[in-house]
Amino acid sequence: MTLTQMGQAAKKAAADLALAGAKKDSALYAIADALETNEKRLLSANAEDLKAAKQAGMRTALLDRLTLTHSRISGMAKGVREVAAQEDPIGQVVEGSVRPNGLEIRRVRVPLGVIGIIFEARPNVAADASALCLKAGNAVILRGGKEAIHSNTVCVKIMRAAAESAGLPRDCIQLVQDTSHASATGMMQLTDYLDVLIPRGGRGLIQSVVQNARVPVIQTGAGNCHVYVDDSADIEMAAKIIDNAKTSRPSVCNAIETILVHKDIAKEALPVIAARLQKKHVELRGCFRTQEILGSKVVPATEKDWETEYGDYILAVRVVDNMEQALEHIAKYSTGHSECIVTKSYEHARLFQQRVDSAAVYVNASTRFTDGGEFGLGAEIGISTQKLHARGPMGVKQLTSTKFLVMGDGQVRE
Amino acid sequence: MTLTQMGQAAKKAAADLALAGAKKDSALYAIADALETNEKRLLSANAEDLKAAKQAGMRTALLDRLTLTHSRISGMAKGVREVAAQEDPIGQVVEGSVRPNGLEIRRVRVPLGVIGIIFEARPNVAADASALCLKAGNAVILRGGKEAIHSNTVCVKIMRAAAESAGLPRDCIQLVQDTSHASATGMMQLTDYLDVLIPRGGRGLIQSVVQNARVPVIQTGAGNCHVYVDDSADIEMAAKIIDNAKTSRPSVCNAIETILVHKDIAKEALPVIAARLQKKHVELRGCFRTQEILGSKVVPATEKDWETEYGDYILAVRVVDNMEQALEHIAKYSTGHSECIVTKSYEHARLFQQRVDSAAVYVNASTRFTDGGEFGLGAEIGISTQKLHARGPMGVKQLTSTKFLVMGDGQVRE
Repeated sequence: MTLTQMGQAAKKAAADLALAGAKKDSALYAIADALETNEKRLLSANAEDLKAAKQAGMRTALLDRLTLTHSRISGMAKGVREVAAQEDPIGQVVEGSVRPNGLEIRRVRVPLGVIGIIFEARPNVAADASALCLKAGNAVILRGGKEAIHSNTVCVKIMRAAAESAGLPRDCIQLVQDTSHASATGMMQLTDYLDVLIPRGGRGLIQSVVQNARVPVIQTGAGNCHVYVDDSADIEMAAKIIDNAKTSRPSVCNAIETILVHKDIAKEALPVIAARLQKKHVELRGCFRTQEILGSKVVPATEKDWETEYGDYILAVRVVDNMEQALEHIAKYSTGHSECIVTKSYEHARLFQQRVDSAAVYVNASTRFTDGGEFGLGAEIGISTQKLHARGPMGVKQLTSTKFLVMGDGQVRE
Repeated sequence: MTLTQMGQAAKKAAADLALAGAKKDSALYAIADALETNEKRLLSANAEDLKAAKQAGMRTALLDRLTLTHSRISGMAKGVREVAAQEDPIGQVVEGSVRPNGLEIRRVRVPLGVIGIIFEARPNVAADASALCLKAGNAVILRGGKEAIHSNTVCVKIMRAAAESAGLPRDCIQLVQDTSHASATGMMQLTDYLDVLIPRGGRGLIQSVVQNARVPVIQTGAGNCHVYVDDSADIEMAAKIIDNAKTSRPSVCNAIETILVHKDIAKEALPVIAARLQKKHVELRGCFRTQEILGSKVVPATEKDWETEYGDYILAVRVVDNMEQALEHIAKYSTGHSECIVTKSYEHARLFQQRVDSAAVYVNASTRFTDGGEFGLGAEIGISTQKLHARGPMGVKQLTSTKFLVMGDGQVRE
């Protein structure tokens, strides 16, 4: 099947899905059950992928992401059931009024239509993303990495059959079999069929989509996040938050990459913070003043460090003159994902939240909370770092649009 | 100034604007006053544009759009004052909760940041668009057509000075002086500075932006709109609505281009509709069955007619077997702007509104109401025909984003 044919099939399925109501939930429960009952098929397809990946010399961290296990498949099924249990956003009346001429206007929530997802080597994304798209009444076209093609193919087959058994069109979920570069580019140009394209993966993928896409895109996942330690900070709290935000899962986008420490507290705070991070083997890269305080515990930072999303056990450290300088640093280097101030000052807390232009701005809490589940929005399809349409964790509601329904009795415009 | 320099200046201004509060309204009132007190300057700059346009042989309809008059300038000032009088969307709490771990989360409305507007030869757009962007706390970079460059230059000078007098940064409004194709393309690529680009103009401009832009775009203004006359329709009402939707202002996007008439009512309804439209000199292009009924009053329609947004005194007419066929026609040819059913049937009204996938779906009312003012949203910056971010008339609220403010007392993620 060509992408155009897939687009046509998706559009047709989307028209049914828009009016599918509670059938969507039946389908999601059927999908969850089918993933579990077909565990063997999934594991054996995954074994093929793993074998090929090992032969190709894939490194351990990526191999781990590619691997399916009994408990991971249970996790996928559980995630799908949680999405099914959420409130259906479709049909919600967002606003409405009766106009002086008697027209009754309602703005109601409707699906986006057809959503494209380009992802890399994590096979669980196929289930997670499909569940969220379906719940919001959207058809989805998945295009995964070639490393996971066997796993994805079987997973999508299972989900399509389960969806159909619940009365939904099979084509509500489709997988692009061609994993070449051309198929990714083709999706980026599919303006007649895709209402939005969401890339899920590393910086390279996202940049390529932003540069080449003609369809509307939601940019996700770039996270150069900061903690600013104010002069009034509780040092123990700062160290605890920095430790958690850096080391609880360094590879994810809501982990921090740089801390900014007020000069009046740096001498006392930096050794406490450094001691705590050294236990986790975090490499520190510091500015000149940081080096003066921490000595050999820190390597010199360069301009490039302020720009880098390490995704690793590395943390850049800069001593700043005041909050203003911290705000400037953040404005210059942040990707607009998540930033935090640790402070006891009401005024600084308030100013920091007003002035930092990021999706999530924290006072005295770890940036690791930037997550649909942690924010109480349910499962998420990604964390948007753009301002258009959705910003921050995107749940089911962010996969919808609205339309205006207008009812009259013959009104015409003067 | 290069576009990059303008982008930097706009970003700086946007940071101030985000916290400008009521100063924005003072600036808008100052702008409105300044447009009126500088009427002479505006008219004389406009005279230069008109002179050049006439020499270049611009046709009458476009000349009319380019022309400023005393009453049009008053209208611009009035529009700006109306925007000033609207509620400020910035800072509104959209949702919020306290999480089980004690984190307090609020999602608050913030400006988008920097908005680019590419428009053609209507100088009033400079004032209208700037007012809406400013009200929502955004800096704006305007790039108008070369035909209006003198008018736009003076208008923007006046607005910048007025904004500054009210305490806003001058660079909250900037005009690209270079009106070459390269400057438009340059804006489409200004990913580091533009949070969104909104093209305002004809199909050619909008298509070019969609094809070439790397910055997020909101597509506006394509309107291939339909009225479906159901077998149960009140024929007089249908004729009145069709007349209004076609002839009250044929050039605008919410005017209709095609009517679809149920075969069981066509014989009776079409002569009534045709008689009414003939008084306004509307050319009818009909399918075979329409030709059978209306004879010489109609010219044969081809496939191309169903696709065409005439923007003129021309209407395509098709007789359909049933509502299903009307829905298929609309799904195939509509641009997703506005469609209407004229019916007495509760069931058909409900189904039509459910199944038509357009920004505004009407029962028994003219599509000409698709407009920010008519919908009670205030002035509009355009009518979005895409589903992402905004759909239908876009007012001040659609020029905003949100961010999450999270307040804790040392929470870290397990």
